[in-house]
Amino acid sequence: MTRQRVVIVGAGFGGLAAATTLESADVDVLLLDRHNYHQFLPLLYQVATSGLNSADVAYAIRGVFRRQQHVRVRKGHVTGVDWDRHLVHLRHEPSVEFDKLIVAAGSSTAFFGVPGAEEYAFPLYSLEDAVRLRNHILSLFEAAAVRPALADDGTLTFVIVGGGPTGVEVSGALAELVDKVLREDFHDVDLRATRIVLVEQGDHLLTAFGERSQAYAKSSLEERGVDVRLGVAVTHIGPDEIVLSTGARLATRCLVWAAGVKANPLADALGVDQGRAGRVVVSPDLSLPDHPEAFVIGDIADIDDGSGGRLPQVAQVAIQGGRHAAAQILADQAGRPRTAFRYRNKGMMATIGRRSAVTEVPGLPALHGLVAWLGWLSLHLVYLLGVRNRVSVFVNWAWNYFTWDRGPRLILRPESLPHTPHPHADG
Amino acid sequence: MTRQRVVIVGAGFGGLAAATTLESADVDVLLLDRHNYHQFLPLLYQVATSGLNSADVAYAIRGVFRRQQHVRVRKGHVTGVDWDRHLVHLRHEPSVEFDKLIVAAGSSTAFFGVPGAEEYAFPLYSLEDAVRLRNHILSLFEAAAVRPALADDGTLTFVIVGGGPTGVEVSGALAELVDKVLREDFHDVDLRATRIVLVEQGDHLLTAFGERSQAYAKSSLEERGVDVRLGVAVTHIGPDEIVLSTGARLATRCLVWAAGVKANPLADALGVDQGRAGRVVVSPDLSLPDHPEAFVIGDIADIDDGSGGRLPQVAQVAIQGGRHAAAQILADQAGRPRTAFRYRNKGMMATIGRRSAVTEVPGLPALHGLVAWLGWLSLHLVYLLGVRNRVSVFVNWAWNYFTWDRGPRLILRPESLPHTPHPHADG
Repeated sequence: MTRQRVVIVGAGFGGLAAATTLESADVDVLLLDRHNYHQFLPLLYQVATSGLNSADVAYAIRGVFRRQQHVRVRKGHVTGVDWDRHLVHLRHEPSVEFDKLIVAAGSSTAFFGVPGAEEYAFPLYSLEDAVRLRNHILSLFEAAAVRPALADDGTLTFVIVGGGPTGVEVSGALAELVDKVLREDFHDVDLRATRIVLVEQGDHLLTAFGERSQAYAKSSLEERGVDVRLGVAVTHIGPDEIVLSTGARLATRCLVWAAGVKANPLADALGVDQGRAGRVVVSPDLSLPDHPEAFVIGDIADIDDGSGGRLPQVAQVAIQGGRHAAAQILADQAGRPRTAFRYRNKGMMATIGRRSAVTEVPGLPALHGLVAWLGWLSLHLVYLLGVRNRVSVFVNWAWNYFTWDRGPRLILRPESLPHTPHPHADG
Repeated sequence: MTRQRVVIVGAGFGGLAAATTLESADVDVLLLDRHNYHQFLPLLYQVATSGLNSADVAYAIRGVFRRQQHVRVRKGHVTGVDWDRHLVHLRHEPSVEFDKLIVAAGSSTAFFGVPGAEEYAFPLYSLEDAVRLRNHILSLFEAAAVRPALADDGTLTFVIVGGGPTGVEVSGALAELVDKVLREDFHDVDLRATRIVLVEQGDHLLTAFGERSQAYAKSSLEERGVDVRLGVAVTHIGPDEIVLSTGARLATRCLVWAAGVKANPLADALGVDQGRAGRVVVSPDLSLPDHPEAFVIGDIADIDDGSGGRLPQVAQVAIQGGRHAAAQILADQAGRPRTAFRYRNKGMMATIGRRSAVTEVPGLPALHGLVAWLGWLSLHLVYLLGVRNRVSVFVNWAWNYFTWDRGPRLILRPESLPHTPHPHADG
């Protein structure tokens, strides 16, 4: 019997967990990703705010599997699936055959049709996004240094939309970048006009967290000078001004979009049932109802949480889903029955800044402040791929902490960015 | 009396040395650079061959002078000088006035009119160049992994033009990258078709070095599998083929141009006398013959070596020149006479690979091998700017040395590169 060919689409948390589970099994794995590196999404906001280097949150995928003879890695952009012929189609490359398929293609930014968002908002969902945002933030300060009058017309006003973990983390990190680092870097420029505004449509930050965590996050951000506005939405985004649901206008050239995600566009190309935000509807074992040979996991899947709700788009759902899908493939091979996916919630955390974070683990009291922050630091170091990246992140963090400095505040190749919303500030 | 305004153009080795010399003096310094970071050019080849991260060889210029109230830093592209009104013109920005001017704008790649070089050769003279070359090298291996037949048509043939330190260092580092790292990364691909060819027009590698060093470099490269061809030039460069002066054709999609530099184009815009390769002719004190208030230093200057020759385009000439120009400005201020620039040759070095380098210091015997390599490592760590960068480079080097791995083998944003010569391989 020839070995089963398992194709995995996406080398995020879910795809890597599936491939790792299968690496010593009696199957041939082909792992496809648009990039040659795995992106560690939870730390993108630190790249955007000059706390970490791009390379700290990226890990060469081939490096993970270099000792695994039965895992092949290919860089390729999957465009669709031919279910009859069991083929995965790739852009500009030959199609590949599969016996079993695991789709773990993740999310993309959802702008919910807000006018101007596609053109002018800065999403933060990939390493490219993070580098583009960093370049833009630093370029606005450079522009204000050359023309001080710009500071009064919104050039130093930063708006973050969305009060989830990403929005909270960006706001806090940006406030510290300005207050501790840029104030010294631009010692000859008046930065008092700098404003950081966090806008959240709901009545609370961090809706998934408990009340005390929400209140702690809000007061902790406000202590850092962030202007937190709850119950307010953004209704229009222009190149140098936005409109709020209150009717107020706010001059800004930098709006960070942390307000939501939808399924990767690959979901639309699969020709299968889709649920909320375009996510793919799956059976209890995470396979497709009409294609039991295919599994869909992580952010791109619409997974029932067992009580009528949906599992959240977080790393743990992807990791556990990847392991589960791999286990079902091995069960099929061994003639064992498949089992339903059971998600074990390990808790959640969000960091606000130096010595400030919130952590909620089921069955334990919620933690705030220094202890939560140390927990956050350790966990992220553990989940980073590769010893070298861990050492580098640790060195950067220690450096930033003890010197109040941030090394990687580099405007790298702004002239070559795919589309820069505000060219006059990026020159 | 108002303080003298000293404008320095360029934050390379020369401009930084000048600004540092003047930072505590009774002058106001304005340091202009196209980037917001200083580039450590001697290590670009390691970025290109996945040995170091971009951020390791870049240092935020504002970080150097954050405690210096009289040094201002501005990101700007200088386009020319108005000598009558004492103005420096900038692209898209207001012009700035100066009392004293130091031009330290460096070099750019010289293609010597070789047909196809502008379009298809990969220079290695800026961080952008290094990242583009790295993306291209890794993308060619990815392409060969998808279509093994490509290996036979030159996709895995790398040609380096120029046998100076840069050409030697790239060739050696690339050979080690392929042999030690990519061979394991691409364990399912036949890399035996990989060829690295170093082409040098002259009869020796490292012409500025002694005979023993030249022979050592050649045999050391050949041991690593590099095909060294002396007395051969490249006469034509196409997208997938080059022509040599012997008439031979060689299929390749990656030609690294390390064959020479000329003055930064700013030299042409100054309206002053130019010497070899467009460099600006200077008086013995490094000022301009017709504009004693302006100094031109480093790679962009054509400096007499006192015996009829020209000083080389190396870091030490720029650093010593920057200090000298700054000292002349202080001498003027103190009413002391100016002095002629005297270059002290501290020696030169080039590295071939692990435990292999050549070092020649005047008055000492030439060193080859391990001792020269350790000297090279230490010196480059000392000359790097910033403790954080030194730590990061040290960690990367130790990692690469002991694990035979290279962390930063990432294809970062190939889709956004300014102009990619071979789009079919970079997709």
